[in-house]
Amino acid sequence: MGLNVTQKIIKDHLVTGEMNPGEEIGLKIDQTLTQDATGTMVMLELEAMGVERAQTEASAQYVDHNMIQADSRNPDDHLFLESAAKKFGLHFSAAGNGVSHPVHMQRLAKPGQTLLGSDSHTCANGCMGMLAMGAGGIDVAQAIAGEPFNVKMPKVWGIYLTGNLPDWVSAKDVILELLRRHDVKGGVGTVMEYYGPGLENLSAMDRHVIANMGAELGATGTVFPSDEEIKRFLKSQKREEDWIELKADEDAVYDFEETVNLSELEPLIAKPSSPGNVVPVTEVEGEEIYQSYIGSSANPGYRDFAVAAEIVKGKAIAAGTSFDINPTSRQMLADLVADGHVASLLAAGGRLHQAGCNGCIGMGQAPATGRNSLRTTPRNFPGRSGTKEDSVFLCSPETAAASALTGKITDPRTLEMPYPKVKDPDEPKLDFKLLTDPLPLEEAKKIELQRGPNIAAIPEMEKLPDELKVPVILKLGDNVSTDDILAGGSRVLPFRSNLPEISKFSFEMLDETYYDRTKEMEYEQGHAIIGGVNYGQGSSREHAALAPRFLGLRIVIVKDFARIHWQNLVNFGVLPLTFKNEADYDDLQLGDVIEVTDIRNSLEKGNDIPAYIAKKDKKMELEHALSKRQVEVLVEGGLINWIKEGKKKLQ
Amino acid sequence: MGLNVTQKIIKDHLVTGEMNPGEEIGLKIDQTLTQDATGTMVMLELEAMGVERAQTEASAQYVDHNMIQADSRNPDDHLFLESAAKKFGLHFSAAGNGVSHPVHMQRLAKPGQTLLGSDSHTCANGCMGMLAMGAGGIDVAQAIAGEPFNVKMPKVWGIYLTGNLPDWVSAKDVILELLRRHDVKGGVGTVMEYYGPGLENLSAMDRHVIANMGAELGATGTVFPSDEEIKRFLKSQKREEDWIELKADEDAVYDFEETVNLSELEPLIAKPSSPGNVVPVTEVEGEEIYQSYIGSSANPGYRDFAVAAEIVKGKAIAAGTSFDINPTSRQMLADLVADGHVASLLAAGGRLHQAGCNGCIGMGQAPATGRNSLRTTPRNFPGRSGTKEDSVFLCSPETAAASALTGKITDPRTLEMPYPKVKDPDEPKLDFKLLTDPLPLEEAKKIELQRGPNIAAIPEMEKLPDELKVPVILKLGDNVSTDDILAGGSRVLPFRSNLPEISKFSFEMLDETYYDRTKEMEYEQGHAIIGGVNYGQGSSREHAALAPRFLGLRIVIVKDFARIHWQNLVNFGVLPLTFKNEADYDDLQLGDVIEVTDIRNSLEKGNDIPAYIAKKDKKMELEHALSKRQVEVLVEGGLINWIKEGKKKLQ
Repeated sequence: MGLNVTQKIIKDHLVTGEMNPGEEIGLKIDQTLTQDATGTMVMLELEAMGVERAQTEASAQYVDHNMIQADSRNPDDHLFLESAAKKFGLHFSAAGNGVSHPVHMQRLAKPGQTLLGSDSHTCANGCMGMLAMGAGGIDVAQAIAGEPFNVKMPKVWGIYLTGNLPDWVSAKDVILELLRRHDVKGGVGTVMEYYGPGLENLSAMDRHVIANMGAELGATGTVFPSDEEIKRFLKSQKREEDWIELKADEDAVYDFEETVNLSELEPLIAKPSSPGNVVPVTEVEGEEIYQSYIGSSANPGYRDFAVAAEIVKGKAIAAGTSFDINPTSRQMLADLVADGHVASLLAAGGRLHQAGCNGCIGMGQAPATGRNSLRTTPRNFPGRSGTKEDSVFLCSPETAAASALTGKITDPRTLEMPYPKVKDPDEPKLDFKLLTDPLPLEEAKKIELQRGPNIAAIPEMEKLPDELKVPVILKLGDNVSTDDILAGGSRVLPFRSNLPEISKFSFEMLDETYYDRTKEMEYEQGHAIIGGVNYGQGSSREHAALAPRFLGLRIVIVKDFARIHWQNLVNFGVLPLTFKNEADYDDLQLGDVIEVTDIRNSLEKGNDIPAYIAKKDKKMELEHALSKRQVEVLVEGGLINWIKEGKKKLQ
Repeated sequence: MGLNVTQKIIKDHLVTGEMNPGEEIGLKIDQTLTQDATGTMVMLELEAMGVERAQTEASAQYVDHNMIQADSRNPDDHLFLESAAKKFGLHFSAAGNGVSHPVHMQRLAKPGQTLLGSDSHTCANGCMGMLAMGAGGIDVAQAIAGEPFNVKMPKVWGIYLTGNLPDWVSAKDVILELLRRHDVKGGVGTVMEYYGPGLENLSAMDRHVIANMGAELGATGTVFPSDEEIKRFLKSQKREEDWIELKADEDAVYDFEETVNLSELEPLIAKPSSPGNVVPVTEVEGEEIYQSYIGSSANPGYRDFAVAAEIVKGKAIAAGTSFDINPTSRQMLADLVADGHVASLLAAGGRLHQAGCNGCIGMGQAPATGRNSLRTTPRNFPGRSGTKEDSVFLCSPETAAASALTGKITDPRTLEMPYPKVKDPDEPKLDFKLLTDPLPLEEAKKIELQRGPNIAAIPEMEKLPDELKVPVILKLGDNVSTDDILAGGSRVLPFRSNLPEISKFSFEMLDETYYDRTKEMEYEQGHAIIGGVNYGQGSSREHAALAPRFLGLRIVIVKDFARIHWQNLVNFGVLPLTFKNEADYDDLQLGDVIEVTDIRNSLEKGNDIPAYIAKKDKKMELEHALSKRQVEVLVEGGLINWIKEGKKKLQ
């Protein structure tokens, strides 16, 4: 039987396990990507592990998240990361060079390879015929150290593309259509693999847009084939030699299949406050907006800015609307300047910001209270914009630009102008001044880590006790995101390298009393948290596991988990359990004390974990889905302990 | 006897008083300028005063300070200001349009007029043959209401310019030379008036650079004549009709005079942490830098960016250096884009930020711990960059660009290239989309103020008691700036419209315990603060008076005051006193309780205020320099009370 692209890449990289969906496999990782918000922790972990030099083919450290520099903490982190990149043999992309995903795609991505990144949108590079996955930082640290990445063998979801996008409809609408059909957990446990004749009409950067927001469906990854378009793209980046053809075999099969006819799509929009809350733009047309925002890794391409520029060219944005332009990279900005598109955007009234993630991660550009913000970004979880009770809509650059002109949500098809068909340049400016190559080993050995005063070592964690008696101190609903657990944004991100400080923000979005209550616990072993479905969706930030663990979180019981956060909980010694009977979710109350005994034995024996609620004299059946390796990690109190204990020798 | 330009403008605008230096005069104000960080309070004051419409010829509200928008507070303020501008009949410059001073110069400044602004660098528009002065917000509110501005008749300091600037030396070096000679209080009580043949070689924007940092000498204003160059500038802005010639009479005299031979100047630099700490660049050459920063109202011109662009064109900035480009206005950015200068800056490795004040006011771009930052901004007071114990140097764009290339402080004369002689464009792009004209009265009447949840009304203040018994809870040194009293920056500025919240940051830079101690006072009337010379220099922010007053500050006793802060203290009911015998400063200790009796009588009778320190059984002679009007204001507990009491009917 033939293989699809995903299976081919996995087969090529399989180190342990069998390719049976749901079983844990170990994959050789060729490339890694870390950004500054997660990277400081990764570098501290590499140091703690005693890693001398990256064992991957290419690992890159980007600075794109924390660039406001309200005080010395951001720039201190940048210097720390620069020194760590030099020391560990990584590429380093300095502040101002741009957003990791598109820059990585341009400079380092290679068809047929695996990429692991401490950013949930790492999957964006699946557009290049790669298996690109987001993971917690410590998983990436392990991959940098040359260890395989352990993940459940995904099912492969074949998405057959036919047709061609109508005017005013673009790649963003393709992924919004899939979110409309399947919502935010529709892709869990799968790799979304695109194929079919419709591909011919999607550029490499269009595919990036689609692959990027695979994360919003909860998918393990998104894979596109490597075809002539990828060859063209690599050629445009003067890297034609990195191209290989990679396509599904003629007789390849998919675990399940679906068709999207591009010709039938229309402009779509995700309403507040979930990327899965998708409707046609026509349904919300006319709602007033405060802001129209273009940029982010979800619409990073030259085309995405150029089409907006062509739409607003010679016109003026509506009075009172903030039209925020967030260029993706310095290199792309240079092209947009050269081709007159920046001039058009400015002349229409645009606010041009520095190249980076910016408002997408809540670093500035927050909307006003009670006002609508329209964004081309990938996420609109509550508060992610920086404004509590925000109202953020996600859409294409076409819809954002059209709406900027009217000050209202506007279907771009209603504009009285021909659709500007802009393409990515075949000969973009190539400029890597702010992206440096790894230092040679001998030079790297001399590098000292530059540690600012805000960079705190990771505290030691105790082993998993064999009995736990912990009260429920939070009971949460469905689709809790890691933004809910530990916000991004300018207040919180500066503490990403300082666990004691950042932990104070844990669950603040959902319950401001959480931190204080963890400090006044009656039960000395810590506490438990209850949640619904798709718990921990969104960003890959391991701080969302680490910070609550630091405050005493020992058990999380939910209906089901999002993949990366589930793995992060294991990596930091938190027991991630699910209800055998979902009705127990309704019974469990705040203050109920969960008792679990004989934990190690239960974990090793099978998947059942019996628990007991003394006050109610109630037994409760819980389950885990941990691999043998994960059980070992958990019992040791997390991955750092597990490594330290010599269960696994590095290098 | 002939008049100089300053005297001519004053004579034209004199409403009360005599033109005797040191005596209070009332001046008719033609134009006002407010920015967002001070403007929200001004608009609340206008509302409290019951003002219906601005009575000035032109009043403009700019949004240029608080543009990070980390949460909803900044954008809520912007919407509030926009609604207030509409309601009160002001011009409104939206976020992204640019820094107030150069935009005002381009669009509204008129030779021969007076301009009052709630920003200490309002003096920059003195370059246009105006008397432009910074003041506290409430003074500006009064001016908007049509009331005269009260200020001490300044001495006029004639600065005779000869010669021509050598290559690699520019306008910034002229004002740094004056700071080198006279330090940060050398201009107190004066208007610095420039004249002489050297003027021919300084463009309108060069003069802006010089006038801007007159604030750093403590001057009441800076005045240039309105000559052919101003005509050329106005013509370039399509406002030739606003030009009038305005020059000193042939037989004009100055209260004192000084000569600067431009030909003899060299590149200068202000070392940390005072704008007066000036040395030749050669003296600090070779010191490593973390950052080179261009922009701000102190070097706002097209030329300032273009010369930097020409210097770095075709080269790369030093690895590891952050080269931060902060465009002044959208309009100027469009010109820099069109002329290829933005391309040069980006290609060299520059980080292009949005048009605005940005890092100059501590809104981002803070340097790393222990690293040097080189900036073309006007101020390097400790911590103003956002980084505590920062190390900020002030210099010209030439020096900043040269240093960006080497990563070290570099005298631009050592570059191996001809000096790029760039001029401001004679036909700049004119684009006022984001700068709107006042609404017609009938439309304005319908406007409601849009008040976000963070916009808090100003609390009522009690009248000045006739006896005060207050302990000294802070004893400070010389040159305390309003940045020390109440910082700017991204942590603090979002609270500019919320007095209870912002007061928590008072004096934090100097003594973190101040706020808490004001809450635990043994003496119920409040407290006193002791300081040295030039107390309250720097920014005009009235919050630096209002916030400590809100916490109970009743008396400030110093060696001498900076003008604007002194007036702000009066406006908010704090008694500003000076030592008759400076030796008493040394005797006074923390905890000493100052008793002042029969205050009203003393204030009205003369300038002596006897005080008593019971613990030491010591009498202390204090003085005030208040006008009759100021005494009235103070006795009422501040300007708002004074207005409310009907001492003065508005309109």
